[in-house]
Amino acid sequence: MSLTNASPVEAAKAAKSASHVLATLSPDARNSALTAMHAGLAAARDDILAANARDLDLARQAAADGKLSQSLVARLDLSKPGKWEDMLKGILDVRDLGDPVGRVTLRTRLDDGLELERVSCPIGVLLIIFEARPEVIANIAALAVKSGNAAILKGGKESTESFVAISRAISAALDTSQVPNSAIQLVTTRDVIPELLALDQYIDLAIPRGSNELVRYIKNNTRIPVLGHADGLCAIYLEQSADPSMAADVIVDSKTNYPAACNSLETLLVQDAALPTLLPPVARALAAKGVELRCDAVSKAALQQDAPDLTVLDATEADFATEFLSLTLAVKTVSSLSDAIAHINAHGSHHTDCILTSSRKQAEQFMAAVDSSGVYWNASTRFADGTRYGFGTEVGISTNKIHSRGPVGLEGLMIYKYKLRGRGHVSAVYGEGESKKRYVHQRLPLE
Amino acid sequence: MSLTNASPVEAAKAAKSASHVLATLSPDARNSALTAMHAGLAAARDDILAANARDLDLARQAAADGKLSQSLVARLDLSKPGKWEDMLKGILDVRDLGDPVGRVTLRTRLDDGLELERVSCPIGVLLIIFEARPEVIANIAALAVKSGNAAILKGGKESTESFVAISRAISAALDTSQVPNSAIQLVTTRDVIPELLALDQYIDLAIPRGSNELVRYIKNNTRIPVLGHADGLCAIYLEQSADPSMAADVIVDSKTNYPAACNSLETLLVQDAALPTLLPPVARALAAKGVELRCDAVSKAALQQDAPDLTVLDATEADFATEFLSLTLAVKTVSSLSDAIAHINAHGSHHTDCILTSSRKQAEQFMAAVDSSGVYWNASTRFADGTRYGFGTEVGISTNKIHSRGPVGLEGLMIYKYKLRGRGHVSAVYGEGESKKRYVHQRLPLE
Repeated sequence: MSLTNASPVEAAKAAKSASHVLATLSPDARNSALTAMHAGLAAARDDILAANARDLDLARQAAADGKLSQSLVARLDLSKPGKWEDMLKGILDVRDLGDPVGRVTLRTRLDDGLELERVSCPIGVLLIIFEARPEVIANIAALAVKSGNAAILKGGKESTESFVAISRAISAALDTSQVPNSAIQLVTTRDVIPELLALDQYIDLAIPRGSNELVRYIKNNTRIPVLGHADGLCAIYLEQSADPSMAADVIVDSKTNYPAACNSLETLLVQDAALPTLLPPVARALAAKGVELRCDAVSKAALQQDAPDLTVLDATEADFATEFLSLTLAVKTVSSLSDAIAHINAHGSHHTDCILTSSRKQAEQFMAAVDSSGVYWNASTRFADGTRYGFGTEVGISTNKIHSRGPVGLEGLMIYKYKLRGRGHVSAVYGEGESKKRYVHQRLPLE
Repeated sequence: MSLTNASPVEAAKAAKSASHVLATLSPDARNSALTAMHAGLAAARDDILAANARDLDLARQAAADGKLSQSLVARLDLSKPGKWEDMLKGILDVRDLGDPVGRVTLRTRLDDGLELERVSCPIGVLLIIFEARPEVIANIAALAVKSGNAAILKGGKESTESFVAISRAISAALDTSQVPNSAIQLVTTRDVIPELLALDQYIDLAIPRGSNELVRYIKNNTRIPVLGHADGLCAIYLEQSADPSMAADVIVDSKTNYPAACNSLETLLVQDAALPTLLPPVARALAAKGVELRCDAVSKAALQQDAPDLTVLDATEADFATEFLSLTLAVKTVSSLSDAIAHINAHGSHHTDCILTSSRKQAEQFMAAVDSSGVYWNASTRFADGTRYGFGTEVGISTNKIHSRGPVGLEGLMIYKYKLRGRGHVSAVYGEGESKKRYVHQRLPLE
């Protein structure tokens, strides 16, 4: 890892060259580098925490002056119980995952002695732009080395001292490994993001880790493919046949388990036939957890009739396009499954949406027709997460329509190449004519 | 299929809505639509060929006035022997491919009664921008319907009459099917490409079919992901241990089988040790086929010594970054495998590159280190093609680093979604603590 003051274009060129070396290292060489990184960070613990304390002092000052939010200060702090240990354990967890490089996913005999193979390989150079959390740097460096990708890291300025200390430790560790120094680069120069985003000839994938605003800015300002999501506007459709207590449990969990998360519930669609039966117990359960309900006229009237004790606000159209990220929920009445599907496809963010119903038929229709990365039946939207899906680690959650969708694990950092091994085969002898050879196209086992 | 004079944004919105219907149609419904398209086109043969003849008249006139190239006129002509039949047969070939929708690629039990499934689904709305060849419209409409994607088609103005006639026939056929009319739209309004390229909120993937200039223009002017390749700058590295006659055969085929194709050879890298032994017979074989050699100083000197009968030109640096698309070949001397790899990674277009050698070790090293969609050992670069790879059809060849790489079949038009089926499961009960449940993460068979 180099701590670079090089220009963005020099950094990107060096990363591209390094990516070609890194892509050919054995799994053992990549895993050994991760072991060295872990040991190096463990040995540098005191230095890193001291650097982090200096960042924290400045940040607390800025927060006191009203220039920085308290939540950002909290995210900066590496000395919080368990955070350091989690960061270190994460490196070994990534090391111990199955190797994503060199997986054969297709083998076809085109003709005698002419065999085609599709093999997974790294994408190339990743650009990771992140905000305060200093542990991201160790996490991303580990994911990059494991997946054989080079990475350029650009962190928020509030954590500069922490980043530099962590980078030094990782850099020294990688110097004892076969991973080229410039495969992982920390760019510390300020205000270089626009320049980095212009380098689509060297950088193959951008991964923003931070606020919606950061992600949106990056998506709107680069030709480099961006993996991630700007919004998480998740909806639940409450159908009349749903079990009332199950519905209340799932809706409460989806909304209140961690309201600031992208996979939290923002819009509840209630079938009109369910207004008198299901909405009151659900609304009571939400109110008991402190959730503010913003209802359309029909659902408000129903609640005023059947649960007059609850306070309910009026929803505006904008509420159905808002990611509240807080204990506020927009409630809308729909008359049918197809209305619910149409609402979600038009207003949602294609992240994770759920139907609560006891009808398998309606559930399957919902899951087929809703155009989102996650479509759930009778389960909390909060399950949308790489760790919960069993991917071992998570690069992010993607609402893209190509490459990777939903929670993205190491697989999302891979592409493939076709290897063709022949014995001097030429194309001119194949064709439709009488004197021509035909392709065999025999599927071969993947070993 | 609608022949739309709607504004681009209206067309794109309608296509997005239609995509949500199309995505849920059964394989039978999509295949029946393809059968109807085939029959409709067969019945409209005379009308379509008459319309094509009118396009051809105008194009021949324009060519006579020097405003259009003869090759473009040739590509326009649907009445050339076999072209009409191939177009019709292509629709049935696509129909008869395996269904790409609804393939389950991962199943995991997260807990009792909580099962995760990853299922292939259409991407959504495709934008196809193509030039003269009118048969592309039938081909693309077939691929879109088969893959469950909506498509907006924008063709070159030279084939307008042919497009309109083909569209009418397809439209009438689709009206007898369950495929919504606006799922396939032909935009006939002129000069709307910039507007279409701005509609990234409705259009999920752009596929240009035409010249390098067209592809480059589109890649540089949209935030929509673009599937394709602007350049095909393929190289062969001739290593000293290669069999001389095998080498000559493969190089001649790669260069001369169809020089205008993207998978044709443009740069020959010769190991210095192979200059006296392998280059002369290879150069003679190429010269016999009319290939003009542009050599660096070292390879030129070698040929003047060992094959003084051949005419050889001087290469400039620019020749090693040029896709000639003609019977011209740039020849460069390199001293080692790693030099060859470095040259290809720096100068190539990451399309298809080949090593000729009898050393398995060098071949495997080359295939691991060259960062191209196709890496070949002792086989012609001309094999880089979806039909030759056995994909049944080809959407195009991609040099992208994400999603799809190399020849792209129907699979390249698919993405996936995660379906999660529960029984009221909530996330709050899972965790690391003593009172918490653990995820099971049991891989299930794919059925």
